[in-house]
Amino acid sequence: MTPTGPNAAADLPDPNIGDIEGAARRIAPAAVRTPLVESPLLNARAGGRILIKAEMLQRTGSFKFRGAYNVVSQIDPERRRRGVTAFSSGNHAQGVAAAAQQHGIPATMVMPADAPAIKRRNTEFYGAKVITYDRDKDDRQAIAEGVVAETGAVLVPPYDHPWIMAGQGTVGLEIAEQAAALEVQPDAVLAPCGGGGLIAGIAIAVSDRLPGCDVFAVEPAAYDDTARSLASGKRLAVTAGGHSFCDALLAPMPGERTFGVNARLLAGGLRVSDDTVAEAMLALFEDTKLVVEPGGAVALAAVLSGAYPLNGRTVVVVCSGGNVDPATFCRALCSGGRT
Amino acid sequence: MTPTGPNAAADLPDPNIGDIEGAARRIAPAAVRTPLVESPLLNARAGGRILIKAEMLQRTGSFKFRGAYNVVSQIDPERRRRGVTAFSSGNHAQGVAAAAQQHGIPATMVMPADAPAIKRRNTEFYGAKVITYDRDKDDRQAIAEGVVAETGAVLVPPYDHPWIMAGQGTVGLEIAEQAAALEVQPDAVLAPCGGGGLIAGIAIAVSDRLPGCDVFAVEPAAYDDTARSLASGKRLAVTAGGHSFCDALLAPMPGERTFGVNARLLAGGLRVSDDTVAEAMLALFEDTKLVVEPGGAVALAAVLSGAYPLNGRTVVVVCSGGNVDPATFCRALCSGGRT
Repeated sequence: MTPTGPNAAADLPDPNIGDIEGAARRIAPAAVRTPLVESPLLNARAGGRILIKAEMLQRTGSFKFRGAYNVVSQIDPERRRRGVTAFSSGNHAQGVAAAAQQHGIPATMVMPADAPAIKRRNTEFYGAKVITYDRDKDDRQAIAEGVVAETGAVLVPPYDHPWIMAGQGTVGLEIAEQAAALEVQPDAVLAPCGGGGLIAGIAIAVSDRLPGCDVFAVEPAAYDDTARSLASGKRLAVTAGGHSFCDALLAPMPGERTFGVNARLLAGGLRVSDDTVAEAMLALFEDTKLVVEPGGAVALAAVLSGAYPLNGRTVVVVCSGGNVDPATFCRALCSGGRT
Repeated sequence: MTPTGPNAAADLPDPNIGDIEGAARRIAPAAVRTPLVESPLLNARAGGRILIKAEMLQRTGSFKFRGAYNVVSQIDPERRRRGVTAFSSGNHAQGVAAAAQQHGIPATMVMPADAPAIKRRNTEFYGAKVITYDRDKDDRQAIAEGVVAETGAVLVPPYDHPWIMAGQGTVGLEIAEQAAALEVQPDAVLAPCGGGGLIAGIAIAVSDRLPGCDVFAVEPAAYDDTARSLASGKRLAVTAGGHSFCDALLAPMPGERTFGVNARLLAGGLRVSDDTVAEAMLALFEDTKLVVEPGGAVALAAVLSGAYPLNGRTVVVVCSGGNVDPATFCRALCSGGRT
């Protein structure tokens, strides 16, 4: 590993279970060990047993804090003074900003101008400077690299790095430990997929700790790059022009490193419509009293819509975040699940 | 204690910490040990440290399952065959229905016709028969007593009974244990108050386990019977004609047994407006990703509105339930906190 920052991903091997255990020790003082939530109402609704890994209860309201903290805590003290930066639709930005604040490091976040207001407001709450860009016109990576060139800040990548995957993999490690404590052997784990860092980390942990348990990536139908890539065996981009209100999952192509892991370990990719995502947000509200953002609800939507046929099986469903504006949440709820 | 059911409250002493510990052992296999949730965002908003006791994550979506299960599990097996009944605005009904279902006991619940749809639907989901009444015209206690006369069912009282208080007191016991695990000494515990069973149970536990920690009952301003009764030293009813959207807290007068405990142990009663309750529902949504119903949010409203001046102190705030219809929830959220 590099002594200064996480930039040299190419020099690092894919993370293994030991790396995830290391990340778990690193984040333990700062992160929330989120509960596995079960509801008889939700089980009856779905026709099987659903255990919700409630990452909206994570610090900063999404799983992103895990990977961000795992990276930031490993930056060389000398290098820290120059700060960190990242580009993000908003959850990674909050995760990096909060992790940087806890280490006393200045942070500059590059976010789309149309990000949910709560994501921008909270990124600033954690002390970060925010630079916005136009999602359709600007190159966010170039903007972040400009910050690096100007300040010497460390660029904390959103997903395509072994340290990020290891951090997000602590979700899978906790799932395995919590399932064991409940004496449950899940048939599958389903999780949302944007660039693929969360699902890759989970797959590494689950393949080691829960052998025989399938892991599925779930995406909005219009952003099904991982599903298509898994089916074809090579990295494919999304078809242009698609739309989804799952603002956290609009990555156009799988990461190179994440896809390498996912192609090896995933059972497959599943697609859900925005309408079924809104239905899942309503179901979680009614049955568990948890708030989930659109991108955080796709895995539950896959189970409730039948994209993953439950048929009495037991699944762990990762709900990856809850940073959603009231108006968006209420549209999903009060449309009776129709967006 | 009676061998058959909980009806003979007058023969029983007030519960003590041992009774609450007994209730905790009794409910452990069935109830959720709900987390104490903390958010840096909420702390900054309030100007102090707030630990949310998240009872919306309790089985049946409110604390009421605790007391209900504590009573139902102590009903004589011979008597169980004749069933249980209760009158309730909806959370006690769900709690008794779920506890009865787990014991294989038939249940008949007497609920107001204007109860939130989710409360009625879920009471039926747990297998109970529901009889509705008109909140303004009918005598709900008389209807429930009619069920008892007809069937021999045990009437499970909503608050005014030592076994109910002991069950709800497990909230206070968990708060004390969780605060100790966090090495926190709270300055106060605030909880919603309808008939007073929850706050009485908490006060008994806290006075034993967290000496020096104040306990406050919080009520909607239009249903401030406990605040007025505490101030005058005798049980007073609410002034007629008041209105609040806190449907779970519309009891018109403190219970005889609960008031006896509360007059002895509480630091006082606090009042909040419906507008500040809606603001609290929005704050909890944004900062913690938890869904709270109006009646469940009054204690948080007391802190955020300044009815309890936080001034850097540390408080435990009980959010007692999350059974709210989407339309009501969205009105609270999307009015920007104005009902």
